This record gives sequence, C-alpha cells and structure tokens, in this order.
Amino acid sequence: MEQINVIKVGGAVVEQPEYLDELLCQFAALPGHKVLVHGGGRSATRIASQLGVESKMVDGRRITDEAMLGVVTMVYGGLVNKNIVTGLQARQVNAMGLTGADMNLILSHKRPVRTVDYGWVGDVDRVDGALLSDLIHKGIVPVVAPLTHDGQGHMLNTNADTIAGEVACALVPFFDVTLTMAFEKNGVLLDPDDDDSVIPGISREMYARLKAEEVVSGGMIPKLDNAFGAIDRGVKKVIITSAVDIAGNNGTILQ
Amino acid sequence: MEQINVIKVGGAVVEQPEYLDELLCQFAALPGHKVLVHGGGRSATRIASQLGVESKMVDGRRITDEAMLGVVTMVYGGLVNKNIVTGLQARQVNAMGLTGADMNLILSHKRPVRTVDYGWVGDVDRVDGALLSDLIHKGIVPVVAPLTHDGQGHMLNTNADTIAGEVACALVPFFDVTLTMAFEKNGVLLDPDDDDSVIPGISREMYARLKAEEVVSGGMIPKLDNAFGAIDRGVKKVIITSAVDIAGNNGTILQ
Repeated sequence: MEQINVIKVGGAVVEQPEYLDELLCQFAALPGHKVLVHGGGRSATRIASQLGVESKMVDGRRITDEAMLGVVTMVYGGLVNKNIVTGLQARQVNAMGLTGADMNLILSHKRPVRTVDYGWVGDVDRVDGALLSDLIHKGIVPVVAPLTHDGQGHMLNTNADTIAGEVACALVPFFDVTLTMAFEKNGVLLDPDDDDSVIPGISREMYARLKAEEVVSGGMIPKLDNAFGAIDRGVKKVIITSAVDIAGNNGTILQ
Repeated sequence: MEQINVIKVGGAVVEQPEYLDELLCQFAALPGHKVLVHGGGRSATRIASQLGVESKMVDGRRITDEAMLGVVTMVYGGLVNKNIVTGLQARQVNAMGLTGADMNLILSHKRPVRTVDYGWVGDVDRVDGALLSDLIHKGIVPVVAPLTHDGQGHMLNTNADTIAGEVACALVPFFDVTLTMAFEKNGVLLDPDDDDSVIPGISREMYARLKAEEVVSGGMIPKLDNAFGAIDRGVKKVIITSAVDIAGNNGTILQ
C-alpha cells in the first residue's frame, strides 16, 4: 500500500511569516503523498481582540459564540489557510485549501451542552476519506482548516488535533498512514524543562507507566490518548515532534 | 454540448443573511451545471474599518495594500466564501470554495504601476478551465472568491466581474456557457431612475447606439464591455439581472 503523511501543525509556526516560510520549505520537501492540517488560534485571538470580540476559554478550549465563529471562519478558512496554500503553490506543491464544508468533506454535529456550552463547536461524525484519496491520487495536496459543518448550514469550530486524527483514520483504507503532530516542543519530554530529553519511542505499556509516574501530564495526555486512539483505528505510526522538524527525525514515535 | 451557468453575485446580496438565504435558494434551484463567483467588498470595507485598516479607493477601485490584502483574504476567501459553501451544502448543492491559489486555478500577475499603484491587485493570466470542467463533471459546484495568485507566493485581489468573465471564457471549450451578472438593478435600464425600464435584449449595434446616446453610461460601460468581450471569446449568452432574479428571467440578455 502507498504511504501518506498527515501532518498537523499549529501555533506560532503557521502564523508568523518567518516560521511559516521554514515550515513550507520542509513540507514541500517531504516526498510522497501528504496532507497538511493547520491551526490558527493565536491569529484568531489577536484578530478577535482587534475586532472587540472577547476570547473566552474554558480549560484551554475556546468558547465559540456567533461573533467568534465569524472570526475563526475568516482566520482559519481564509487568512491562515490561503497563506499556506499560496506559499505551497510557490513551491510547486499543488495545494488545495479545504474546510469540512467544502465538498462536504467533514460532517460534524454541534457539541451538546453538558457542564460547559462550547457554542459553535463541532464534534466530528465522518471524514470522506474516499474523496480525499481521490484528490491525493490526482497529485493534489489537501490543506485542511480546523472547521467542519453540520450539513444544516452551520460552520463549526473543531480542534485541529482532532481533525488531523480523524483525517488520518479516514485515510487508513487507502494508504499506510503516518500521523505527525508538530508543536512547540521537540517531542514527548522525560523532563518538561529539558528540550533535549525527548523520549524517542513510546509503546502503549510505556505510556501507561509514564502516566502512572506522572512523567507525562497535563496537555500531553489528551494528545497521546488521541495518538494511541488513531493507532487503534489503523494508523501505522504517530510522530510527536517539533514544528521545525516535521519530517520527525528527532521526535517521539508511537507505534 | 452541455450547458453551464456562471453566475456572478456581488454586493449586499452575498453579505446580508436575509438576502443570502434567498440567493442560495435560487442558486440551488437552478438546474444543471453551475458555478458561483462572489464579491464581498462591503464586508471587506466594514471589517477593515473595525480593524483600523483604511479603505482607499480610486475611481471606485480598491487600493490593496499589505493590510488590506490580509483583510480581503480573510473576508473573501474565508467569511463570505465559507458562508456560501456551508449554506449551499445545507441545500444539497455539493459546493466547493476556491480561490485562484487553490489547485493553481487562476494565475495572475500584480498589476504594473502606471498612473495609479493599486497594490496587491492581480490581472488574470489564465484560468484552468479543464480543472474546473473536471470538478463540475463530478457534480461539484465551484464557488469562486475574487482572489488570485501569482505563483510566487502572493495572493492578489482581483475584481469579481473580471473573475466571472475569465471563468466563463475558460469553460467555453467544455460547455455552452451562459454568464449571468447579478447586481442591485434589475438589468440595463433605459431610464436609470426607473427600475421597471429594463431593456430585455441588447445587440452589439444597439449597444453602440445606447452609448452614443448616453443612455448607457458610468459603471455600466465596463460591465457591458466585459460582457461583449466574453461573447467575443465564445460565451453564448450574457444576462445582466437583479441579484434577486439570478435565473435572469426579467433581466437584459446580450448575445
């Protein structure tokens, strides 16, 4: 089966010109089939603030009211996505920007209100992997913004890590999938204060032990749960690495 | 040859929820192959103003400096485009939003500075009609934002009427093309103050006479020049009509 890399990049890397340039070079240089999933939260917060729209967060998750939905639709679907697409086109990568609404790629439903009302936030129901596979086999490189839709006329804000995981799983019937989660750190660290303490590989047993010993904690736990969940669903390999090393040579590999 | 309708809508219609809903209903009801090209200038001006970005115009044309390029990329490529796509998906139209950068659809070059420096404005070099035709034959309905790119990493702001004309012409080898330009008036008016004075049909000879007699003047002249230019390049019919009558039953037909 052919290989594919699904790369998720978030944070400052997709939002600051000097980093973005380096990221696009690295991404363009990756051989073979690939998909890029991006975030954009910093830009959304900044532009929301300039527009007088308050950014409300609960446990690090954004509350998406009507005004904020407009902002993320502009920023993720327009500004960040199109900057990446234009930059990749200049590097001979035939990129196409997509939200979940485009060609009905990712259908979701508005998250039910339990203890917190997250507003216009979507939990993914299905990703059209066959459609993506078809585009990819035509030489197109999908660039996916963290927006989905409910099929009833509402765009919904959806976590980019979640989108990357769901996209990776939807491609499993068509490719041998590697999912790369690129972020600010160099990988999963043995010592959170030492950027050189990357754990090169983590098995499921080791993960259980690292959690019990509280070596892994906080925001890293949902990231790793998400990663092992993807492996359960057929993704061959997950790499957690630095956004300036998206080939993942020095990151943490989960298998 | 199969028929296709290329519909350009601009102004308030794509930017105000109550009008947009009516437009999307009408567009969804159009039978056969179709493409939607949209504007979004009013939203761009409003959001630019909220962000403290000044809207500079010369003879009704926008000057696109760096800050304004960011705004139109967000607003045209994100907010307006994705609202339309999401709304069409809810009406069982398999819409896909596109800028010129996506899949390298529309290549342009930055307009050279002569008397006026328009900034990051693109004049169209080519539209990939074969790519559009391929998508359309798969049942996809392209929704095109008025943004192009130069292949060197720059998004460029491009007039939506121009995009619609170029898209229509690029589809001529693949379809019998009707181009519909929908706007605030009901069509080309014999008396600009009388909305009921629509001229039902204008031939090229009649257009020359109407210009000489100054019945047609101002902003209508570039619109009609653009329309007859499209006919010269093989478009079968151009309809100038109201944005609340995109089927064009009561507009002006040019052939």
